[in-house]
Amino acid sequence: MTLDAVLSHIDAELPNATDRLLRLLRIPSISTDPAYAEACETAADWLVEDLRSLGFEAEKRATPGRPMVVGHGGGDNGTGGRHVLFYGHYDVQPVDPLNLWHREPFDPEVQDTPDGRVIRGRGASDDKGQLMTFVEACRAMKAAGVPLPRITFLFEGEEESGSPSLVPFLEANAEELKADVALICDTSLFAEDTPGITTMLRGLLGEEITIRGPERDLHSGFYGGPAINPIRVLSKILATLHDDTGRITVPGFYDGVPELTDELRDQWQALGFDDAAFLGAVGLSQAAGEEGRSVLEQIWSRPTAEINGIWGGYTGAGFKTVLPAEAHAKVSFRLVGTQDPHAIRDSFRKMVEAQLPEDCSVEFHGHGASQASVMNISDPAFEAAREALSDEWPNEAAYIGAGGSIPIAGYFKSILGMDSMLIGFGRDGDQIHSPNEKYDMKSFHKGTRSWARILDRLA
Amino acid sequence: MTLDAVLSHIDAELPNATDRLLRLLRIPSISTDPAYAEACETAADWLVEDLRSLGFEAEKRATPGRPMVVGHGGGDNGTGGRHVLFYGHYDVQPVDPLNLWHREPFDPEVQDTPDGRVIRGRGASDDKGQLMTFVEACRAMKAAGVPLPRITFLFEGEEESGSPSLVPFLEANAEELKADVALICDTSLFAEDTPGITTMLRGLLGEEITIRGPERDLHSGFYGGPAINPIRVLSKILATLHDDTGRITVPGFYDGVPELTDELRDQWQALGFDDAAFLGAVGLSQAAGEEGRSVLEQIWSRPTAEINGIWGGYTGAGFKTVLPAEAHAKVSFRLVGTQDPHAIRDSFRKMVEAQLPEDCSVEFHGHGASQASVMNISDPAFEAAREALSDEWPNEAAYIGAGGSIPIAGYFKSILGMDSMLIGFGRDGDQIHSPNEKYDMKSFHKGTRSWARILDRLA
Repeated sequence: MTLDAVLSHIDAELPNATDRLLRLLRIPSISTDPAYAEACETAADWLVEDLRSLGFEAEKRATPGRPMVVGHGGGDNGTGGRHVLFYGHYDVQPVDPLNLWHREPFDPEVQDTPDGRVIRGRGASDDKGQLMTFVEACRAMKAAGVPLPRITFLFEGEEESGSPSLVPFLEANAEELKADVALICDTSLFAEDTPGITTMLRGLLGEEITIRGPERDLHSGFYGGPAINPIRVLSKILATLHDDTGRITVPGFYDGVPELTDELRDQWQALGFDDAAFLGAVGLSQAAGEEGRSVLEQIWSRPTAEINGIWGGYTGAGFKTVLPAEAHAKVSFRLVGTQDPHAIRDSFRKMVEAQLPEDCSVEFHGHGASQASVMNISDPAFEAAREALSDEWPNEAAYIGAGGSIPIAGYFKSILGMDSMLIGFGRDGDQIHSPNEKYDMKSFHKGTRSWARILDRLA
Repeated sequence: MTLDAVLSHIDAELPNATDRLLRLLRIPSISTDPAYAEACETAADWLVEDLRSLGFEAEKRATPGRPMVVGHGGGDNGTGGRHVLFYGHYDVQPVDPLNLWHREPFDPEVQDTPDGRVIRGRGASDDKGQLMTFVEACRAMKAAGVPLPRITFLFEGEEESGSPSLVPFLEANAEELKADVALICDTSLFAEDTPGITTMLRGLLGEEITIRGPERDLHSGFYGGPAINPIRVLSKILATLHDDTGRITVPGFYDGVPELTDELRDQWQALGFDDAAFLGAVGLSQAAGEEGRSVLEQIWSRPTAEINGIWGGYTGAGFKTVLPAEAHAKVSFRLVGTQDPHAIRDSFRKMVEAQLPEDCSVEFHGHGASQASVMNISDPAFEAAREALSDEWPNEAAYIGAGGSIPIAGYFKSILGMDSMLIGFGRDGDQIHSPNEKYDMKSFHKGTRSWARILDRLA
């Protein structure tokens, strides 16, 4: 049997593959909210069953948080092929603000849109749809009797909530999980018809700050003036995070931020990225990051500081003249090169503390810290995958960067000693982490075909 | 019959008067939240019935929001006495954060505490307990057959939500509501055993700001850097509201702010106010208002800008790397002297707009605007009331200021052409607008006795 038979099988099976994905999307596996813990178990069980139905060994493995799914199989050519670890995550983002969804987030459906057929629902793109492209490729290889490389599956359930159990799990199961190279499907196409292999990923450092002032909420008439207002203190501190040129002011922040090589800058310029179209698609016209940097640089190779959430005082309908006892913010930093997340966390905390008035205190809560990843593309598996992708898609595959953080790639390197190939089929318009998330049917279909081509070369 | 008989009646009736107040406190008449509109109707009905039970005419009057209660009666000495309008409000503040209450906010009870007996529950002090001191005084005068001055009652149900219906109602019913002087019971004792007649009240200007950037929530990995973050823009703007000396930077803000007269400053210094104790009671040690001003000045005679609420992005449990489409704040200004709230609103809005990046927009929503009030104490009714209060309490009554805003006093002057006597029996520790609000039984009891003495003098 040949690869062509596999691809034909994928084409014919697309309706059934879509039904399977819709079933997985109906499980509301939000990891950050404990109310959905049971749904995460259900999603993990579903994946275990699906892998077993393909003849793979598969198990749900408990962690202190949401479970991992681990599976093994393939190696049908004996010891000749590569041993790959495939990683995806079955947990999804929260769905608020719910009122902006046009349909229940966990009642997915296939929709015909002016831009083509899409699968609509929370997790359709991030990451259930992407994860299933790989599973469906394996299913088609099995059905067509085409040899698979040796595969270890690892599906995580805490990717959207900082992966608290991941490192201990990798450390405890390193011997079982080690492979020659990791395959990660959680990234995007570079453009319509142009697949990419992501070789640069920003790291992520999350911090939650609580500023406390008066020991209880006060009436702003009786105390306004002499009593310090924690929201005012928090605003003042957050306002100092960036200077007027968009640079981040945390002391030592730029230690380990490499300047882009001329070679890479040339490659990226050749991609013909349309800054205005990228910004215009979300209603913007000006690049708001560091002055003098292109949009691709600002996203792929420059670090950031963002306020992801802020709250304090009265936030309901109407007005309440309260002078609140505390104010909160969730702040995150995207990291590049060899920036050290732990050193930056320390420096950020010191910077906040240095700006506190005498009557205020601060409490910090860390939400994960991962370094950036830069892949070594001299491994021939990268070129094999690039050629396989180029066979499937109209345009040649490119090595690209990514602004998002997939800490797993760093952990695979540091704990399991292997590089990662980041190959995904998402699109900028997928609205992941936003209302009305979708995954293009074309991404799902050609993504599955792409993995079949890659697996065939790696076997 | 004499005043002594009235006071004896009040003493004997205290348990029944307390029961009546507890019944009123059980009605959750939160005006700012539409979910409690029906409860506001119930509270108004309750007051109508209670006034009628005393032989007063009373009616609930519809407004576009919560209803007014209007009553008439007294004038038992013919045309000789004063005609007073008594004002209170039956609506209460929201109760969040609910988890900080030690008891259901609307299940009030009498509690014995180390500082004496208190009535605990939302609205106990602000303003149901205060309002009922006047009603109970009337009840005792009626029961003892002692003549009342002519009284018009006006109970509002929107005081805690900016009084949107008040001005149109006063204008439409000016002839019915006009009196010689208004009595308002919504303020505090100056100190334990020292009653005050408040003669300076700060005005209040409320503004809600919504800053919009990207047209939808974005993933901070994919867009962080080039996409403008509305929380960052909002923080930067709010951080400019005060300069390093605590002065407010809104252009023209200090127009109409009078410098304190030496006479008044001397009077206030003589009150022996303890700055450290006032701040220490809420866990603070430093006066955070304008540099070089005493705490009493900062509260009574200086204007402020406060951020009463802020929200945007992800504020739930865990972390979500969202770059939000919008960010919000509720800002209020306390005004003094002849500061013009409308001019300040315009100037504030211009100041915000001037700081907006090109890709952001702002929407403003006004939440009420009232000028400060300064009473004319040459009206002999003030001195009569001061003497009556001094008869009831251990220490002589004082003319004082108040940091809170009671816009009604300004409207009584501008619409009905009368001054107001602001007499109340609250205490700094009443935790109004906060969890675990209470009213001292002593305030309730001696407050009722105080009004009886005042009414007797004014009749």
